Amino acid sequence: MAIGLTELPTLHPVAGIRLAVAQAGVRYQNRYDVVLIACDEGTACAGVYTQNAFCAAPVVIAKQHMSNASTRALLINSGNANAGTGDAGMSAALACCSSTAEALNCYQNQVLPFSTGVIGELLPAEKIQAVLPTLASQLDEDQWAAAARAIMTTDTVAKGVSAKINIAGQQVTLTGIAKGSGMIRPDMATMLGFIATDAVIEQSVLQDCLRQAVEQSFNRITVDGDTSTNDACMLLASGQSGVEVAVDSDAYQTFMDALKSLCLQLAQSIIRDGEGVTKFISIVVEQGSDQQECLDVAYTIAHSPLVKTAFFASDPNWGRILAAIGRAGLEQLKVEQISIFLDDVCIVERGGRAASYTEEQGQAVMSQEEITIRVFLGRGHWSETVWTTDFSYDYVKINAEYRS
Amino acid sequence: MAIGLTELPTLHPVAGIRLAVAQAGVRYQNRYDVVLIACDEGTACAGVYTQNAFCAAPVVIAKQHMSNASTRALLINSGNANAGTGDAGMSAALACCSSTAEALNCYQNQVLPFSTGVIGELLPAEKIQAVLPTLASQLDEDQWAAAARAIMTTDTVAKGVSAKINIAGQQVTLTGIAKGSGMIRPDMATMLGFIATDAVIEQSVLQDCLRQAVEQSFNRITVDGDTSTNDACMLLASGQSGVEVAVDSDAYQTFMDALKSLCLQLAQSIIRDGEGVTKFISIVVEQGSDQQECLDVAYTIAHSPLVKTAFFASDPNWGRILAAIGRAGLEQLKVEQISIFLDDVCIVERGGRAASYTEEQGQAVMSQEEITIRVFLGRGHWSETVWTTDFSYDYVKINAEYRS
Repeated sequence: MAIGLTELPTLHPVAGIRLAVAQAGVRYQNRYDVVLIACDEGTACAGVYTQNAFCAAPVVIAKQHMSNASTRALLINSGNANAGTGDAGMSAALACCSSTAEALNCYQNQVLPFSTGVIGELLPAEKIQAVLPTLASQLDEDQWAAAARAIMTTDTVAKGVSAKINIAGQQVTLTGIAKGSGMIRPDMATMLGFIATDAVIEQSVLQDCLRQAVEQSFNRITVDGDTSTNDACMLLASGQSGVEVAVDSDAYQTFMDALKSLCLQLAQSIIRDGEGVTKFISIVVEQGSDQQECLDVAYTIAHSPLVKTAFFASDPNWGRILAAIGRAGLEQLKVEQISIFLDDVCIVERGGRAASYTEEQGQAVMSQEEITIRVFLGRGHWSETVWTTDFSYDYVKINAEYRS
Repeated sequence: MAIGLTELPTLHPVAGIRLAVAQAGVRYQNRYDVVLIACDEGTACAGVYTQNAFCAAPVVIAKQHMSNASTRALLINSGNANAGTGDAGMSAALACCSSTAEALNCYQNQVLPFSTGVIGELLPAEKIQAVLPTLASQLDEDQWAAAARAIMTTDTVAKGVSAKINIAGQQVTLTGIAKGSGMIRPDMATMLGFIATDAVIEQSVLQDCLRQAVEQSFNRITVDGDTSTNDACMLLASGQSGVEVAVDSDAYQTFMDALKSLCLQLAQSIIRDGEGVTKFISIVVEQGSDQQECLDVAYTIAHSPLVKTAFFASDPNWGRILAAIGRAGLEQLKVEQISIFLDDVCIVERGGRAASYTEEQGQAVMSQEEITIRVFLGRGHWSETVWTTDFSYDYVKINAEYRS
């Protein structure tokens, strides 16, 4: 089902970052559902978390631990989000951190917990605690692909990206994995992303790098407008390549380009595997007077069930795109300045159907699996791009049956 | 399919308001698709229109005409929205007004045009013009039910409400019809509503009455968050009962109560017949600190595809409701002050699963066709209610196949 996604590419090991997976039976049976990522001493850790006011217990704890101590381990489970679970949920997450600390011989607050899956059910901490000794004994730098598979929930394919870049003649590795296919929306979603590099980067710089990269990637994708309680994207820098990335250096620019590219590919892979997806849709809004209005227009189109069902039907029903732009809340929007393209086909000019447009042209573009909607607002020089899916029977099926 | 809607009730004639229907073949064949509503001289006319920046041609013209002249006729067609059609669309709508004026012996700007249906296709004015002499010759006060049927698009049942009320010992009639089942959202939608009364009401007072009634009814419903380019709700007052309704009188209060009740029933009937609906859902948000935050929470729940698909599945997945509240954007939301009820069942208290809650209780409520979600925010004394539908396979089907 996933659009343009093949099997996982080669995911290069990152020196100083070791992983292991286990079958704890949190919810799913007969599959790996817990991942332990251990970082060597001296690893810097950055994180970006969900904006949902109902943060899940693991998110609350991960934020606290990250600010209080140097991070030595990430513990991730799929199948249960440990969200909406109150004090009991906090205790369960802390118990898992505690057992991890014991297995790795570090402090409890050096462990960051992450959970993804059903909301509102208590995390069976004892099942996770039971596999921790095994996890700790099997840590290996070459387990990224297994980890990518273990963190999946409704994902149909595992998602990972890896790159080796050259900084001042030396090699630096970046490897990342992600999961998520529904409840996806700006400011993170049911999305989890774990990225590591062996570059040497100071913690505050690393945090800034991650924020910038996430803003233009994970924060520009949406499947259904729902923001989850659990989203997080983490970036670890082990420093073991010995290659320093300092602010304002050439190395910084090279690193940022590679990080942005990696985040964008991971984010787009989430959309390509969106729940029930049959189309991968890029929405480009140009000539806006500021960033916000470009995003308002892009997300209003991206979230319109009528636009999304028309894409599912491969129907060039451009009137629905026009109507979505019209209700995006832009002040003094001048309809006659707007034009809209589907790929290279101009469908709307000066606010009405383009004179040159034919249904056949529109139909040809809509029949593709990957489509770009390009809106020109005629109000300024800003532009923004977001990526989304269509809305299919299978989206309804997946979300109506998720708990059964 | 429609929830709790039976056949049209008796729709009482309103003295001074005559209607006729015709088969013009605008888009649909073998069904009535044009309605003419003629008002006797002296009828006051009020209107509330879509907030979409892309107003359809008929909306632009109806607003202009209403402000420039006393209204004598409403001309409505289904099957084609005459939206996104530029200058040609304006000409087509004006041509229809002109022919109506000729047939009724009034001025062009005394005719208000309304269109509903597909966006972006030119209105075949000549087909409508061709049936106008017949329409004019068949005008009759007892044609409300036929009109309710002729304005339908994806509606599965015709919608109308009628009441006779007593004001100072005299009888006053209110009768209204409406259409709309998708693209429904606050500030009007693909919704058209036409209401008439024989009360004597001054135009500016009538406009104020309509605004108040619409605010708490048509502006509180949503199927899919999409606001159409064509929505309008009109209120005609022929004055032929001789019963005066002046501001601040007892008569005014009685009249407003009846008008609000009629609008609420019409608005709810649109939701009960929402595209693909299997549940009629009332969302009540209480203890907000102001109106806006109550509406923000209510609409975030109402528009969440994850909440809507869970309702379709009759799945008490209250975590999705919790997550929707969490992303509604309320400042300093205190999770531990929130409780949520499904009908009488407390599912969330102090931000977590209620101690007394069992899945069986939740399941029992969710199995019903009509469900109330009640959210207590614990922040103040405002409350607001909106009405919405679930999200089913049939919603996708209807909107993926609408043009084929």
